[in-house]
Amino acid sequence: MTEPYLDRLARRSGAAGTALCVGIDPTPEMLPRGWPTGLAGIERLARLLVEAAAPYAAAVKPNLAFFEAYGPPGLAALERVLAATPPGVLVIVDAKRADVETTSVRQAAALFDALGADAVTVNPYLGLDALAPFLERAGRFAYVLCRTSNPGAGELQDLVVAPDASLGAPAEALHRRVARRVAAAGLGERAGLVVGATAPAELAEIRALVPGLAFLVPGVGAQGGDAAAVMGAGPATGAPAGGRSGGGLLVNVSRGIAVAAASTSDSGAADPGERLAEAAHRWAAALAVLS
Amino acid sequence: MTEPYLDRLARRSGAAGTALCVGIDPTPEMLPRGWPTGLAGIERLARLLVEAAAPYAAAVKPNLAFFEAYGPPGLAALERVLAATPPGVLVIVDAKRADVETTSVRQAAALFDALGADAVTVNPYLGLDALAPFLERAGRFAYVLCRTSNPGAGELQDLVVAPDASLGAPAEALHRRVARRVAAAGLGERAGLVVGATAPAELAEIRALVPGLAFLVPGVGAQGGDAAAVMGAGPATGAPAGGRSGGGLLVNVSRGIAVAAASTSDSGAADPGERLAEAAHRWAAALAVLS
Repeated sequence: MTEPYLDRLARRSGAAGTALCVGIDPTPEMLPRGWPTGLAGIERLARLLVEAAAPYAAAVKPNLAFFEAYGPPGLAALERVLAATPPGVLVIVDAKRADVETTSVRQAAALFDALGADAVTVNPYLGLDALAPFLERAGRFAYVLCRTSNPGAGELQDLVVAPDASLGAPAEALHRRVARRVAAAGLGERAGLVVGATAPAELAEIRALVPGLAFLVPGVGAQGGDAAAVMGAGPATGAPAGGRSGGGLLVNVSRGIAVAAASTSDSGAADPGERLAEAAHRWAAALAVLS
Repeated sequence: MTEPYLDRLARRSGAAGTALCVGIDPTPEMLPRGWPTGLAGIERLARLLVEAAAPYAAAVKPNLAFFEAYGPPGLAALERVLAATPPGVLVIVDAKRADVETTSVRQAAALFDALGADAVTVNPYLGLDALAPFLERAGRFAYVLCRTSNPGAGELQDLVVAPDASLGAPAEALHRRVARRVAAAGLGERAGLVVGATAPAELAEIRALVPGLAFLVPGVGAQGGDAAAVMGAGPATGAPAGGRSGGGLLVNVSRGIAVAAASTSDSGAADPGERLAEAAHRWAAALAVLS
């Protein structure tokens, strides 16, 4: 798996014709009526998302927390789910890790080696040196949190930081400085950014600031982000991600797809797999990219 | 377990007479000669740290990464290790989590419910709203990363952010703003700060800024931090942590204790458990607090 991640992403985005990333964040409330509400139901829904929805997508993004909440059996269930991912669909393990470097080495082993992630999400608060173990893997990739999709994201991320002459940076929001540092470090082939769809103005501004970085955009659908705004501003226009199919853009939809299963039941006429496939198909079209 | 965490910490610190927190971050290099180098050896060393070193300490701090790197069996090994923790010794699960709130809920379930943590470490980059699920548990506690101990910690954490009149805050380093926000939110009974011993000047300045918060201080020993400087500046002096035994201070030592086992072997005269106990005893004395 040493082919560059951005090449694999471009090939899959082009083949599927979409920037859709299917979030795998199953909760008991999403389960069809009559399903077991414990881990067995969680695994069954996750498996169905991977089998029925992922064929329409460029990538899947399981968030580790929804599995590790069940302890070792939850992690084992995620391993089984990921083993069922269709060939070519990229796996982004959303875990938002970072620690001092000796510990980041072990975090990277957990995500890349034990779980087989193609890409991961990481947190920039400790600085780029702490992220090195996530950035040194041939063929793998890390999305650095920049502007997140939660309501209070701006509390730290929008704080205005002092100018930095070495970067040619004016006084600017912290999240812009993060974007600038990732780009200035020349990490574009190994690292992109997480920018929430819930902040469309910031998304457009960050895209203009770092035209070559790949973006992972959560927050479309249940969190209120607008798909059209993301597709207008999200794709990279410069090197290294620009010019490739899809422009290095992934747009994550989690609950917006998974809830399609909740209105079904084992005994009803509607099949949860069919409903998930329909929802994924619709979202894939809403997030269409040129091949 | 609804007795406040700071009360439990004070009782244990007073009884043990120390601010020592034993880090449980086992790697193959730390193992005695002749031990199995895979997970079996890792679990054996972790278990020995809990049984031989923890009796001299106020708390133990396993870092989840050193176990989850082995997949589900690693997580199961950690559960067995934690079950062997001596009564009264607090368990801080170091995982540096934070996500959008619906996900933080599941992260908190993984750490507090599945693993039984008394306290956890969390990352402030997403803002305090994302941390709410870690702060709402009666009897539990969260240490918010403020100034970490890695060489590049200052890259973001020392950036100077603009004044904030609502907080009465001047232009100041980002890590000071994090400390100020945690204190201003009145979270002192539910949240403290992580401040590395490798930045003694910053530690003293942060302590002066937020005199009432509990501190977890890593970086003493192998990372180069000075125990005397930490003991001089680290304990809280104001409410809520000040005035309690130990002043809400925990000082973590990981490799500084664990390496005592590496110079032993099963066939040698030195017993790894005895060596770990001696090392923990020395560190407990170096980090002595009044009861």
